[in-house]
Formats: sequence, C-alpha cells, structure tokens
Amino acid sequence: MRYLTAGESHGKALVGIIEGLPAGLKIDIKKINDFLLARQSVVGRGERSHSLCDEAKILSGLNGSVTTGAPVAVLISNNGSKIDGFDFYRPGHVDLAADVKYGYGDPALGSERGSARETAMRTALGAIAMQFLEKIGIVIMAQVVQVSNVLVGESNDIDKSCRCDVRDAEKIKTVIEEAQRRGDTLGGKIKIIVRGLPVGIGSHVFYDRRLDYLLGGALMSIPSVKAVENGLGVGFASLSGKQVADEWENGSRKSNNCGGIEGGISNGEDIVFYLTAKPVPSISGLKTIDGNGRSSVTAKVRGDVCAVPALCFVAEAVSALETAKALLDCLGGDTMDELKERFVAKGALCRK
Amino acid sequence: MRYLTAGESHGKALVGIIEGLPAGLKIDIKKINDFLLARQSVVGRGERSHSLCDEAKILSGLNGSVTTGAPVAVLISNNGSKIDGFDFYRPGHVDLAADVKYGYGDPALGSERGSARETAMRTALGAIAMQFLEKIGIVIMAQVVQVSNVLVGESNDIDKSCRCDVRDAEKIKTVIEEAQRRGDTLGGKIKIIVRGLPVGIGSHVFYDRRLDYLLGGALMSIPSVKAVENGLGVGFASLSGKQVADEWENGSRKSNNCGGIEGGISNGEDIVFYLTAKPVPSISGLKTIDGNGRSSVTAKVRGDVCAVPALCFVAEAVSALETAKALLDCLGGDTMDELKERFVAKGALCRK
Amino acid sequence: MRYLTAGESHGKALVGIIEGLPAGLKIDIKKINDFLLARQSVVGRGERSHSLCDEAKILSGLNGSVTTGAPVAVLISNNGSKIDGFDFYRPGHVDLAADVKYGYGDPALGSERGSARETAMRTALGAIAMQFLEKIGIVIMAQVVQVSNVLVGESNDIDKSCRCDVRDAEKIKTVIEEAQRRGDTLGGKIKIIVRGLPVGIGSHVFYDRRLDYLLGGALMSIPSVKAVENGLGVGFASLSGKQVADEWENGSRKSNNCGGIEGGISNGEDIVFYLTAKPVPSISGLKTIDGNGRSSVTAKVRGDVCAVPALCFVAEAVSALETAKALLDCLGGDTMDELKERFVAKGALCRK
Amino acid sequence: MRYLTAGESHGKALVGIIEGLPAGLKIDIKKINDFLLARQSVVGRGERSHSLCDEAKILSGLNGSVTTGAPVAVLISNNGSKIDGFDFYRPGHVDLAADVKYGYGDPALGSERGSARETAMRTALGAIAMQFLEKIGIVIMAQVVQVSNVLVGESNDIDKSCRCDVRDAEKIKTVIEEAQRRGDTLGGKIKIIVRGLPVGIGSHVFYDRRLDYLLGGALMSIPSVKAVENGLGVGFASLSGKQVADEWENGSRKSNNCGGIEGGISNGEDIVFYLTAKPVPSISGLKTIDGNGRSSVTAKVRGDVCAVPALCFVAEAVSALETAKALLDCLGGDTMDELKERFVAKGALCRK
Repeated sequence: MRYLTAGESHGKALVGIIEGLPAGLKIDIKKINDFLLARQSVVGRGERSHSLCDEAKILSGLNGSVTTGAPVAVLISNNGSKIDGFDFYRPGHVDLAADVKYGYGDPALGSERGSARETAMRTALGAIAMQFLEKIGIVIMAQVVQVSNVLVGESNDIDKSCRCDVRDAEKIKTVIEEAQRRGDTLGGKIKIIVRGLPVGIGSHVFYDRRLDYLLGGALMSIPSVKAVENGLGVGFASLSGKQVADEWENGSRKSNNCGGIEGGISNGEDIVFYLTAKPVPSISGLKTIDGNGRSSVTAKVRGDVCAVPALCFVAEAVSALETAKALLDCLGGDTMDELKERFVAKGALCRK
Repeated sequence: MRYLTAGESHGKALVGIIEGLPAGLKIDIKKINDFLLARQSVVGRGERSHSLCDEAKILSGLNGSVTTGAPVAVLISNNGSKIDGFDFYRPGHVDLAADVKYGYGDPALGSERGSARETAMRTALGAIAMQFLEKIGIVIMAQVVQVSNVLVGESNDIDKSCRCDVRDAEKIKTVIEEAQRRGDTLGGKIKIIVRGLPVGIGSHVFYDRRLDYLLGGALMSIPSVKAVENGLGVGFASLSGKQVADEWENGSRKSNNCGGIEGGISNGEDIVFYLTAKPVPSISGLKTIDGNGRSSVTAKVRGDVCAVPALCFVAEAVSALETAKALLDCLGGDTMDELKERFVAKGALCRK
Repeated sequence: MRYLTAGESHGKALVGIIEGLPAGLKIDIKKINDFLLARQSVVGRGERSHSLCDEAKILSGLNGSVTTGAPVAVLISNNGSKIDGFDFYRPGHVDLAADVKYGYGDPALGSERGSARETAMRTALGAIAMQFLEKIGIVIMAQVVQVSNVLVGESNDIDKSCRCDVRDAEKIKTVIEEAQRRGDTLGGKIKIIVRGLPVGIGSHVFYDRRLDYLLGGALMSIPSVKAVENGLGVGFASLSGKQVADEWENGSRKSNNCGGIEGGISNGEDIVFYLTAKPVPSISGLKTIDGNGRSSVTAKVRGDVCAVPALCFVAEAVSALETAKALLDCLGGDTMDELKERFVAKGALCRK
Repeated sequence: MRYLTAGESHGKALVGIIEGLPAGLKIDIKKINDFLLARQSVVGRGERSHSLCDEAKILSGLNGSVTTGAPVAVLISNNGSKIDGFDFYRPGHVDLAADVKYGYGDPALGSERGSARETAMRTALGAIAMQFLEKIGIVIMAQVVQVSNVLVGESNDIDKSCRCDVRDAEKIKTVIEEAQRRGDTLGGKIKIIVRGLPVGIGSHVFYDRRLDYLLGGALMSIPSVKAVENGLGVGFASLSGKQVADEWENGSRKSNNCGGIEGGISNGEDIVFYLTAKPVPSISGLKTIDGNGRSSVTAKVRGDVCAVPALCFVAEAVSALETAKALLDCLGGDTMDELKERFVAKGALCRK
C-alpha cells in the first residue's frame, strides 16, 4: 500500500491517490466526510477552517461503493478563498526554508503546500484505511491529554469539540480562549491507541519494517509534531528495568509500558503512542526578517490557536495508513475475503 | 542512497551493503574500526561486548581506498561464541512476537536478529556516511544527557567511556555500577546534533521527504529507543507560541527551539534531536511465560546494564545515513567533485 | 521523481500525481492537451476515442504556470459514456485474470482499469516530463515503422494521423481500413529515440539503476507491448561481435547498434528502442468461456483496430518519465536553475 | 522481497543480501553451488571462468539450513586473479560511460563492476528464490534456441554444456569454436518458461505491479540482453488479431501466444519470454579511442566467446527473483506454512 497527495492551501483542490487496497472493501463516503467535518469543527481552529466545509469525492477505484483493487483517487475541492500574501518569514513555519530551497523569491509561497491544510487529504486517505481496519476489528483512537498546562485524564467518554474527557472539556476550551484573547497560541499532547492488532505485525529483521519505524516516522511527519513517544516514552529515562518490565501474571501482562511493541513487532497489547505538538507558530509581532534579509515583524496571517484537538484526527488517519501498510505486508491479499481469512489465521497463532 | 544489513548475534558475520555513494570518496577504514571499538568500550556494556573486537572489512566498491560509485559491502565477522538458549520469553524483548510471527517454536531464536548486535552494522555503514558528510563540513555529535535520575549538562568536553561531560562521568559510572550490583538496568536520554547543513535539505511537499520524517523514523527504529524529540520536544506541550518562537535579532536567531527544522526542512541552525532509551530488558527474576504459555521466570541471559552511552554511536551513525540520504536527494552527484560544487552553490543560496 | 495514476475507462475521471519535479519549470497546459488530442486523432482508434476530447487540468503544484516543487496533480474528466457490460472473457484482455484475482464475479469489471484508457494519464504526466526535458535540450520522438506486413522507412517528415513517413501514410491507412472491414485488428512496431542525453545517465552498479532497466521495464508495461528492443534488438542474435561493434572513426562512432546504452549507461548517442505491439484483442467471434467456465463467443465490445500509431504517444510519454527519473537521480535539483547548471556541467565532462 | 548485490570482477568477493523471504524455507546450499558451477561450465565461457570455482556461502538468515525471516547474506569469494588494465574504451562495454560518469580517469575501472561477473551473485540469490518457488510447485526453465545463425528446436532433453536440445549441441559447439578461432564472438536467443503460477499474479492496476514490467525490466537489465519478448514477441507485428487470439476449446486454450500474461497478470498458462543477447563485445582489433580521446585499437582483454548458454542460468535466476517478488506481493507470508496454505487457496480460485 502506498499513496501520494497533492494540493495547496489556496489552490484548486487537494488530491490523493491510494494504491494497494484489497478489492471488496465497502467504502462509506459519508463516514469519511463526517470525519473531515469533525476535524474542522473542534476547538482551536482558526476562522478559515470553520468557513470551509470539506467534501471528499472518490473519483476512481470503486464499483459502486466497493473497492476493485484499482487505485482510489480522492478529491477535496477548495473554496475560492484568496491566498494570503505576506513579505516576512514567520518563525516556526516553512517560509524561509522553502523560499531558499525552491528559489521562490516570495516568503509566502512555501506556506501554500506547507500549510496544515495538506493534512486534510492525509486525513481523508486515512479515513479510508480506518474503514479497512475496522472490517477486521482494528480500531484507532486518539484523545487530547494535555493543552498548555492543563493535563487531562484519559477517558472513554470523549467530548467531540475538544477530543478529551468530557469532564475536562471546559478547562481546555477556557485555556484556548484565553490564549486567543492574548494573541497567543498553545501546544499540547495527545495519546493514540491502535487496538486489535494480532501478535506479529511489523518485523525486527530490518529497521524499515519495524512497526515503531513506520508509526514513529509517519507521526513525526505531521506538521507541528515535535515529539513521538511509544508507551512510557520519555518516562523510561529515569526508571529502571525492574520498574518498567511488562511482566506476566495469570496469563496476561501486568502493564503495557512498552506500548504494544517489542523489538519492533506488535505484541498483542494496545499499540500506544503520544505526540507532542508545538504551539501554532502563526503569531503577530514576532521579530523576523523579510525576503531580503532585513529586519521585519510578523503580522497575523491565519492559522489555528491550538491544533491539538484537530491533531487527533490526523494522527488517527496517519496511524491507520501505517498500520494498514504493515498488515498488508504480512497478509498480502487481493481481496477482503482472502485478507479476512488470513487475518483470523494469523490471530489464531497466538493464544497466550 | 539505500542500504541493507544482515547477520545474527551469534551467526557467522554481520553483513551490510550501502548503495548510492558518490565516486571519489576516500574511506578511512581505521576510522570506522575506531568508531566500532569506541562503541564497544563505553560503560554499561555487558561482558560479551568487551570480549568481542569488531573489525569491519570492506569487500567491494573501492579502488584502493576510494569509492567507485559501486555498492560498498562491509563484513564484520563474529567470533565463535555460542548461542545462549533459553526457554522463556523475556518481557521487553522481541522473543514472543518473533516466535509467534515466524513460527520458530523456540523462544530464543528471535533474539539472534533482534539483538542490539544488529546495530553494529548500522554503525559501520553510518561511519562511512559520516566520512562522506565530513568531507563537506557536516558533523554529527551525540552525547548522554541523562542516565536514570542523573541529569548531565551539555558539554564540549566529552568523556570517552561515558559519552558525557567529563565532570559528570563519575556520577554516570556510579549509577550504572549500582544498578549492575542490584541486578537491575537503566535507561536514559541522549542529545544528537547535526551541524553544517545548509538551508533547504528535506522537503515539506510530501511527508516522506521531510527531514523530521527521515531522522525521526530512523532514530525511533534503533532498538530500545522509545521517544524521539526534535528541539524542545515534549517541552513544547506546556509552552505558548510566544514563549517558543525562534525570533530573529541582528541577523540571527535568538533561539533554536524548533531544533533546526521548520516545515520538515533544515533552516540553517543545528539539527537537534533527543532520544530516550528504555532500560535494557535483560533482567533475571521477571515473571513471564514459556513457549507453551506456562508461567515462567526469566534468568539472566546476556545484555548490557545501560545502553545509553553506546546509543550515542548508533544514533550518530543512523543520523548520518539519513542526513546523507536527504542531501543526495537534493544534490544528486555521481562524484564527490560534482557534489562538493553543488553543495557550495546550495549553501550560497542563503546568506541571512 | 515518482508518480501514481488512477481512474477507470468509464469512471468519473482519470487522476495522476507526479512528485519530485524541480521548481521553476514553466508548464504549457495547451501543449499537454494538444498532445492528448493528437493521440486521440491518429488512425486506428475506435469510435469512442474520437467522441472523447480529453482535457487535462492541473490542480496543484503550480504558481501561475510554474512548478513550485510541490506534487502536480492532473485531472482528466471522463464524459458520461456508459460502461459496456459483457459476460465472456475476451482472450488477450485482462478480463479472466482480473476477475479471478480480485473476485469480481463479473467478466467485464477488470477491463475498466485494464483498458488502454489508463495510458491517457500516463501520457499527460509524460507530456509534463517532456516539457521538463525539452528545457534542457532533450527530445523524444517515436514513429511507426511497421503495421502488419507494411514496413515503413524511418523519416523526419512524419504524417500526423499515421505517425509515420508521410510517403507511407496511405499504405498504413489502407491496411488498417482493410482490417477494420474484415472485423480484424493489427499489430506493428514503433521506434523511439531519446536525443540529447549526455554520457553518464543511468548506472551499471545495480540492475535497477540501469537505463535499459528503467526504459525497458516501463515500455514493456504499456498495454499491448509484447517486445522491447534496444538498438539492433533481436537482430543481434544472428550477428557476430565484429559485425555489430560500434567502432570509432575520426572522433565519432561509425554505428549505433547498441542503441545509445553501454553497460546500462547512456553513451552520448541517440537512445533507440523498438516496441512491438500485439494486435488489439477486441474482436468478435472468438471462442472463449464465460464467468462460469462455460463455452462462449466474444461479441464486439469496443476498442481500436490498430493501436500502433497511438502507441507512439504513450511510448514518448513513458520514455520521458523514465528519462527524467534517471536524470534527476544524477542531478538532483530543487530548482530548474540548479538543474540546468548541473546538466551543462555534466555534459561538459565528455567532449569526445 | 528486495535485494542488493555488491562486488567487483577482481575484488575480494561478491556479496548479496536478500530480504523478505518467509521463515521456514529449507535452503540446499549444495544446490546453489551446483547451479553456479553449471553456469561456469557451459560452452562459450572464457578461460577465466573455468579457472574460477565459485562457492557461495550463506552468512546469515538461517537456523541450521532453514530461513528465519531475517535477511540472508551470501558471499562468493574471488580468487586472487589480477585486474586486467587497459587504456582504451572497448566499444559495447561500459568503459567510456562509466569513466565519464564517475570520473575515474581510467578506462578499465568501470569494467570491474560492469563485468558480467556481477551476475554470479544475482544467480546465487536467484537460486535461493528458485528453491522457494519449487517448494510451491513453480519451476523455471531456460534453454538456448539460437546461436548466431544456428536455430535450435525447443526440447525437454537438454544438453548440459550447451543448454539446448541434445541433438543440436554439436552444432552449437561448432559454431562457437569457429567464432573463437576467428577471434570473433556470437550472440543468440534463449527461451524462458515460468511454469506453475496460478491465475492472478501481478496486477493491471498500476504499471509497476504488472508481471510483464517486473520480468521484462529485470530481464532487460541482464548485461548483453538487448531484446525482451513475451510470448510471440516481435512476431505479433505482422499478424492480425484473429491470427493470434488465444481462443478456448474444450476448456483449455488452443495457443499461448500471449506468453501467459494478459493485462499484466498471469493467466494460468506458462509464462514465456525470449531474450536476445548481443555478441560479447570483448574483441581485439576494434577501432576506438583512449582515455584522452585519441584513436586507439582494442586488444583482447578477457571475456566469453558466446554468453548465450550461460545466460540461461542468469535468466532463470532473475526470473525467479521477480516471480517470487510478485507472489509475495499477493500472498504476504511470514512463514512457509502460511504461504503454502494461501498459495493453495489462491490456486483454487480458478478451476477453468
């Protein structure tokens, strides 16, 4: 399975092609669009986000609503909003690096592809991968566990607009609104769980087949993500081997500190990752330089106040794409029927 | 540039092939072997490590000591040590997952390839990549910043056996020795710097060309690494956009919180990553199961007490491989002469 | 450089994404569409082809008409023609194999992606690659040299509708019309030239970097192509080393029997390939089986009488994509300015 | 499945790593070496070939003689023969192109990796792939069908030293000996059959998953191969659709003109390819230039008189590698047990 995406923040459309899905997978397009809409509706998004209403259209690869094994192309048209020109490099954005690399002679051009809007298509393709995974009983869930200094308990009862425990939603909203009033932005942390993988997905035999490589790299590639932790993550640094060992008792693990991956392979526990997102770097009044290297100051361009709730959707999508890739590597499968049978047989290998 | 590695912990040899290096690169084989030896000589390694004396031999791709553009094959022979059989799954190791996946019917077999010994070949290939990078002025440095609860200041004066500030070396040694006496193991944290990259390496246009993807994924794939942070990393979660902005003043940045990467592209500052390693999971007395799913207890097999100092070498090597890959993607280059010229021209694009 | 395509013969649209083009390349969209139209207008195409009027739209990756380095997405909408259902497997088509592989339960479904219509998008993406190559002086030209038993001389004066020497165009038209009247179809042969490559593109060091691998494989992948020859091709079988040696005289080669590639690398002569296309397998009255394995007979479905003139366009496009890939592998290049400079320097290495 | 190879004609060793083989495959190392020896023993090889006695050693990836799923490294040591220096570019060899590309300043250096000796390692890795395929009932056979003007009938009774019908072996030997006496070399043609593939291997959905792409490209990449034909190959050019249609009668095909591939997918018939090899370009007395561009004349360096019989082995090996790749893409499979079960189920899908 592989994919490519294309499209700019203010271009005509976002386009994606995903290749390698088995035939026989029924795609629910409404579910994809609900997922895109939910992503746009969470707190922390800028005004532009709310004015858009992304609608993914599938242009190929389906017979009716069922995959044929042919590449699936997805289109999300942009509405007619104008490009926001600016003549300074915004610290924390791709502006300077892209301008130098690609020789634009324009500090704003790089942000067209560099914008987080690129993740809308990854989210759409990932929503397809999630439907594939759900068919075989694998679910992926992300939730906010921190925004700024507000730490949020993990929960099964998730508020839709904050993507965190319903009891903490107000705190999250408040801290984001306060930041917005100050003209500031916030970072935070989310937790991602992949549940239902059998033992044996990924491989330790070469680095790029490890599940922690696949998930770790792809999650790190999401704009604004600056730290990726598996299981206890940075918490491992100060603990000893005895303290963190995931021992067995009465036929099951006492803990899942390693986050479901041992030696790069799924071990049957939940796969757990944490992502830290930096605060959105779209802030006015920052000292910077312009395209000629002269001192300048940023003006507010656009952008979210806090991308952390929205990040949950992108992280779920990206995790789904990589998980599907790792599964198909083990299972092959031209059709869903073949794949389901192989998946069940794979799962039956480990009954411990 | 691409590579493959092969070889088991107690097999005949480790083998690596690296393909895509430019012609005209003079390789100093002694330097590679000094690097391998230094990796084996740091504190925290188990007894077996010290009995080995890795010697890399280059079997192809050179004319004398200069690359020809042909694939470079590297061989590290193993000495004759016997395989350590055991009949339980060690928590934290690949044992269970590999046995189920590959149907070994032997809890110990997976550890042959799953062993950290695999990283010796990555270290050797990375040492070649480091020589390539050095020719164009790029240096990579890793140092220990934490072992267990001992936090270590960053320094330019590095103790060889602890890979940390010389003034803190004793503290590190002590905490490791104490753990060893207790039959316990320790985790920790290292910092990696890639210095000398011009603006514009990596790309924001697709996720797998981003420098944070390349480095983040590959660093996460090193055995025992459970967290990868770029720049401030997890520290971003509780700070605001204004607090972390890398503003400009008098023609240079006031800070490098983003760790040298903006929008997935190098921005001319040091590339900075932090890795957290879990404690080595080779501990006796842990509750576990055996190959038949019955309760068992681990015995001491082998392994290091603390892999953190040794991790510095692997992390430097892996960072070198990915940095070289990203550079060659931009610069192409059949020969070092072509490449150097293009590198200088690339660097000259940004004089800010 | 890489690309993906998607889309079915009677689906909503064909979609393509090409990733890795340098920034700063001015794209002439009209030229792409002229190329697509010319492909549809040659002799030998079925009725459906003439009713379509492909128009490629570029949805991303451009600033105005200039590439930004971001992925370029191309869309060709299909008109509303209905899918042609049929309940037998047409010999020579993908029908049977795709139905078994993907479990369609429908003999006609595989032909939706298996149709030569897929090549329209490869042609569009290749037309972009051709514009890239033209900017640095590389041209690609294909012409018909045989249709059925009509052998056609090579020429610089090419008839547009037959893609062969103007003096032979009538003969070609006649033989195709005769076949059409008989309800039969025809195969033939084309010649492709890539002119302007410097010495040193491709590499002998590993098989998948060889220019004959890149071009040979991609040309073989064009539907209906059943033979790929480089230079003298099958003619080499009966000749001796002395007879075919491309000797030097007065500073240049006396012949180009090896077709511009020695050891998998361009040698500065024209790159020459010949492709043999089988007759279009869309014929009525063939004995076959249906989806239940019972004897059946084909009815006319759709399709061209002779795909050989149209093949010239696809072959040019595919050759352009692979040539661009091989060039960018050597030259890298984030921008056209960088690339042009490097190309000139590369060409200057060989003045023999 | 993927692999890399390394090693020069007169270097220390040839090295290969193959990654992605399932666990549980018993490897017969003697069979690999018999295959290598047979390749060296056929007629047409130069004197050096006979003095070598290649012995492949497997350095990793096995538990005893059974694969573990880890990468398999293969080593073939070279004997101590000295490099053959020369100061002219041999027409037909990589000499000129490699020297310009890699800046050697030595006309002979490129031939070290450019030599057909590179194919010894591909042959060894392919011999492993052949053992994998044999386990599931797939066999690959190549035979000589033409050397110079001697056409040879296809046969099941193959002479070992000529790799052709035993009744024609003398004719082949004679024509090769005559060429050798004249100081000339010969080309020819071989036929390759892959037997036992079920319907549905390869895919029409994207060009690089087509079986004709995989096999066609890889076969074209074998040194000296200048034409690749599938089924009737160039014979298709002059025939009509009715003449070549592989019609069905009484439940089976009347012919296999398409060579077992329809729409890029295996159709259950034998996969048939023909390769044309150019005469070995190692001839004395050819007009050429030297490293300074001055006129020169070639002296005899080394090399075979006719590589066509030896090509059979390389072609079988390369076909095995690509066939295994295509199979594993469909079937996945961490273990041979999983894979065999899936292969049987796949084959059962088509009972026509």
